[in-house]
Amino acid sequence: MFERLDRELVYKGSILDVYQDSVKVPNGNIAKWDFIKHKGAAAVLPVTDEGKIVMVKQYRNAIDRDSLEIPAGGRNGADEPTIVAAARELEEETGYKSEDLELLLSTVPAIAYSSEVIDIYIARNLKPSRQHLDEDEFVDVCEYTLDELCEMIYSCKIQDSKTIAAIMTYKAKFGR
Amino acid sequence: MFERLDRELVYKGSILDVYQDSVKVPNGNIAKWDFIKHKGAAAVLPVTDEGKIVMVKQYRNAIDRDSLEIPAGGRNGADEPTIVAAARELEEETGYKSEDLELLLSTVPAIAYSSEVIDIYIARNLKPSRQHLDEDEFVDVCEYTLDELCEMIYSCKIQDSKTIAAIMTYKAKFGR
Repeated sequence: MFERLDRELVYKGSILDVYQDSVKVPNGNIAKWDFIKHKGAAAVLPVTDEGKIVMVKQYRNAIDRDSLEIPAGGRNGADEPTIVAAARELEEETGYKSEDLELLLSTVPAIAYSSEVIDIYIARNLKPSRQHLDEDEFVDVCEYTLDELCEMIYSCKIQDSKTIAAIMTYKAKFGR
Repeated sequence: MFERLDRELVYKGSILDVYQDSVKVPNGNIAKWDFIKHKGAAAVLPVTDEGKIVMVKQYRNAIDRDSLEIPAGGRNGADEPTIVAAARELEEETGYKSEDLELLLSTVPAIAYSSEVIDIYIARNLKPSRQHLDEDEFVDVCEYTLDELCEMIYSCKIQDSKTIAAIMTYKAKFGR
């Protein structure tokens, strides 16, 4: 039905590569579609023994303001298992580590144009470790109750899609 | 703290423009960050009088397979109100129309690199109209119960982030 005829690299970026695809669609037309190739990412919903959720607040260049999110980061290459990336990002960004990770969701954030998949894990049994951020990474760590986070989603104060998907799915599966 | 020094257009695509940003970060370093400028989009969670949810299934080039999603589409220019875009996409993709739209969520799908914001509306009081797809758009329309959709999210069969965010938030606010 759909047949890709060509994929031309138009920009090689630092975290993504941009292509222009030529795709034959079912009516025979040739469509030109933007395509972003991404190595994939992992995110973590860290739950403390008291049931609070550990969040990170950071400046986001794409929206030019601060954003409150669950910890996340790109894979170190397309071969790295996402559970390894999730454990690393948890420790790097929050200073907690966990060996108790459970897959909650697998999500495609920008399905209209990007191949990025984010696997999201619940992390429990958090142990204190040491925060060690990447160069050029600056985050504040803070803990919230599930109710507080739901309220921020309902009032559009939390807008990051992986964070909304993770928190609302966690609430449905494990919340009161 | 963060200061953007330069934003250079590197690719002008059909639905997005790609830039390389130079940003001075708090430690004085100059970071080079990919940035995608997007005109924004709207999505709809259409709920029938029987409480079923109207979904669309379509081929997605970025992941090279079919995807089950809530109806959505880009704004016709950055000035179009998202509620207008939402009503249009609902009618075009599903053949239902509604004058009863309520904002559910505002979400940023790819916050690490794209400015895209998707406003998601609940549509109720659906009236039969006529499906009229864009050229190169091919979708199947199908209705599901909320429980069926939650099950598909928990088993990672539904991966689209706006769809997960919308369905799980709807369940938390309005579900049983």
